[in-house]
Amino acid sequence: MKFAKRMDNVKASAIREILKLTEKPNLISFAGGLPAPELFPVEQIRNITGKILDEEGEKALQYSTTEGYNPLRELIAERLIEKSYIENITKENILITSGSQQGLSFSGKIFLDNDDIVLVESPSYLGAINAFKASGCKFIEVETDDDGMLIESLENAIKENDKVRMIYVIPDFQNPTGKTWSLERRKKLLEIANKYDLPVIEDNPYGELRFDGESIRPLKSLDTEGRVIYLGTFSKTFCPGLRIGWVLAEKEILEKYILLKQGEDLHTSSLDQREIAMFLKEYDFDAHIETLKNVYRVRRDLMMDSIKKYFPEDSKYTYPEGGLFTWVELPEYIDTEKMMVKAVEKGVAYVPGESFYPNGGHKNTMRLNFSNMNEEKIVEGIQMLGEVIKAEIK
Amino acid sequence: MKFAKRMDNVKASAIREILKLTEKPNLISFAGGLPAPELFPVEQIRNITGKILDEEGEKALQYSTTEGYNPLRELIAERLIEKSYIENITKENILITSGSQQGLSFSGKIFLDNDDIVLVESPSYLGAINAFKASGCKFIEVETDDDGMLIESLENAIKENDKVRMIYVIPDFQNPTGKTWSLERRKKLLEIANKYDLPVIEDNPYGELRFDGESIRPLKSLDTEGRVIYLGTFSKTFCPGLRIGWVLAEKEILEKYILLKQGEDLHTSSLDQREIAMFLKEYDFDAHIETLKNVYRVRRDLMMDSIKKYFPEDSKYTYPEGGLFTWVELPEYIDTEKMMVKAVEKGVAYVPGESFYPNGGHKNTMRLNFSNMNEEKIVEGIQMLGEVIKAEIK
Repeated sequence: MKFAKRMDNVKASAIREILKLTEKPNLISFAGGLPAPELFPVEQIRNITGKILDEEGEKALQYSTTEGYNPLRELIAERLIEKSYIENITKENILITSGSQQGLSFSGKIFLDNDDIVLVESPSYLGAINAFKASGCKFIEVETDDDGMLIESLENAIKENDKVRMIYVIPDFQNPTGKTWSLERRKKLLEIANKYDLPVIEDNPYGELRFDGESIRPLKSLDTEGRVIYLGTFSKTFCPGLRIGWVLAEKEILEKYILLKQGEDLHTSSLDQREIAMFLKEYDFDAHIETLKNVYRVRRDLMMDSIKKYFPEDSKYTYPEGGLFTWVELPEYIDTEKMMVKAVEKGVAYVPGESFYPNGGHKNTMRLNFSNMNEEKIVEGIQMLGEVIKAEIK
Repeated sequence: MKFAKRMDNVKASAIREILKLTEKPNLISFAGGLPAPELFPVEQIRNITGKILDEEGEKALQYSTTEGYNPLRELIAERLIEKSYIENITKENILITSGSQQGLSFSGKIFLDNDDIVLVESPSYLGAINAFKASGCKFIEVETDDDGMLIESLENAIKENDKVRMIYVIPDFQNPTGKTWSLERRKKLLEIANKYDLPVIEDNPYGELRFDGESIRPLKSLDTEGRVIYLGTFSKTFCPGLRIGWVLAEKEILEKYILLKQGEDLHTSSLDQREIAMFLKEYDFDAHIETLKNVYRVRRDLMMDSIKKYFPEDSKYTYPEGGLFTWVELPEYIDTEKMMVKAVEKGVAYVPGESFYPNGGHKNTMRLNFSNMNEEKIVEGIQMLGEVIKAEIK
């Protein structure tokens, strides 16, 4: 039996093996990108599901359209208009996906042939890197500072390579760095995308989770040429187990996503879509997000304070204004992948940073999640991790 | 903006436009492959969901593993061992997918490169054809009679084409024809697959819905070389809206499916997986299937009797022993796609048969579903359709 050539691009990532270490019981894990389960609206979902099954059980359990449950598509469009300064959209611009991971995977399939190039921030989200890889593409990591990609580096990458086909960015509370693009840099990115006629995938899973400062308009709201494809999800603001995300795009582009989805899995769970739609209609979603933000803000603060207190002085780290992650750079001679075994032995885990660089390197970095562990564990875990790091210091 | 070349293979099928006609209210539709929604265990799912959320709501709404919910994987393995003569399998051979459509789509990706050939029955399931097409493959339709593929035609197709990479079959109550392969033909298919070292995708969504006669062992139970990949689903025996299917394969092959799924959508809904697992554990699944079979048997009988009564004498049709469909061949000069407009005007719909032939033709055929409409509508609809057909008879 022969496997297709494309399967050479679909390999177990090193990180998958490393993350198996984190299955140890009682481990304090800053590794996953998991929301706090104690904040899931379990009781409300219980009520909602009962109501849906009473009122329209037969529809909620039957096959439905590929595009998604229309009331949910409408609610998402309305919310984007209200909260994100995005104009001139309707439900016809929204496709419901099985998490925004599916939107990432579809984006790779739609825009990237073998050997085509996607431009990403350096570092970038490893789930997106894996999803795009299946298309056989190559990656150029564009130099990135605290305000986003360096525009000169971005333009040079495009000028110097004729196979650049897509730009992928996470402008708000980026995964893994926690950084947020400035408005200025967003505008300039779009100028470049317009000049070179490239599609931009704007991945925005964390945008609503801003703890401090003013929110910055998404790229999609600044897009005058319909070239931004915006990926959203309820995984971080509601719950990830239901696997509900969405793609927002111009109709002609969205049609490609819809056709692809029809062949891939027909449609996303009819019941799960209705659960979120009814939550949006019958409960106060803003208040729910406010609760999340209040808890996550405290955890972020605790983590940052603990890092300052327990990590070696020459560690660098970002101060995220929202989202789920902070990013740490240790002295260059420290290999966080090797150090991981010692950390797990001690009882604490993180994600070694190299996985977020599609072209490798940067072994002295790590991603830390502050949403999933409670306050006590955050302090205890960062203290433990500080000791592990200090033992590596020469 | 440029789209990837593979998107040339992902096009709106003609059928999609035709099926839009079926959205007309009050239409009697034999077009979809929909189960009877009045038989969904709505009340039981209501109870189950409440219980799951009470007992482990945080887990049921959190991210979970790509492979699937372990108790569900175990229950599926146990049921296959008990009901399908399949031996030596454990949960480690099962991946939970978002419907078996996802298993089909993954199979194409894993085994088919551009211009590779997949061998299919003639006709075959249009959802599989569409899913495979995305890989850029070509199709050879193997001549098929009432017992399955003609083995000589199958072997010739392999001998004459060096790019044959996969065999795809639906041995039980085939979609669209409703036919079932004989045991003899199943064994011979496997001999050929062994001889030429080809993987076999066995798609079995309807196997448990046998109304008469003895069930025949699935290919997977006869597979001595681990080359059969068995696709199962709860869409027809439980409800399709939850999108829960599975892939059963040898571990080395299953690993490819798991890696692919991780990049595609991370995992299938944690809550929906638990709902089905708890139904299997706490209710009598066999009794539920018995109820379905009793209703569908009556509908099948009514449809067959009505076809005999109302269709022109020279129509041919299959007599399915289970599943959801029968298949009609009209005189060669009748084009069922053109006739569809007249049928829908009159108030009845079906699927024109050409869509089930990847290489086209056979315009005089149609697929009729008997599971979704109630008894009264089946008689009324077949009578109407008979009149439409008779008006075409020269």
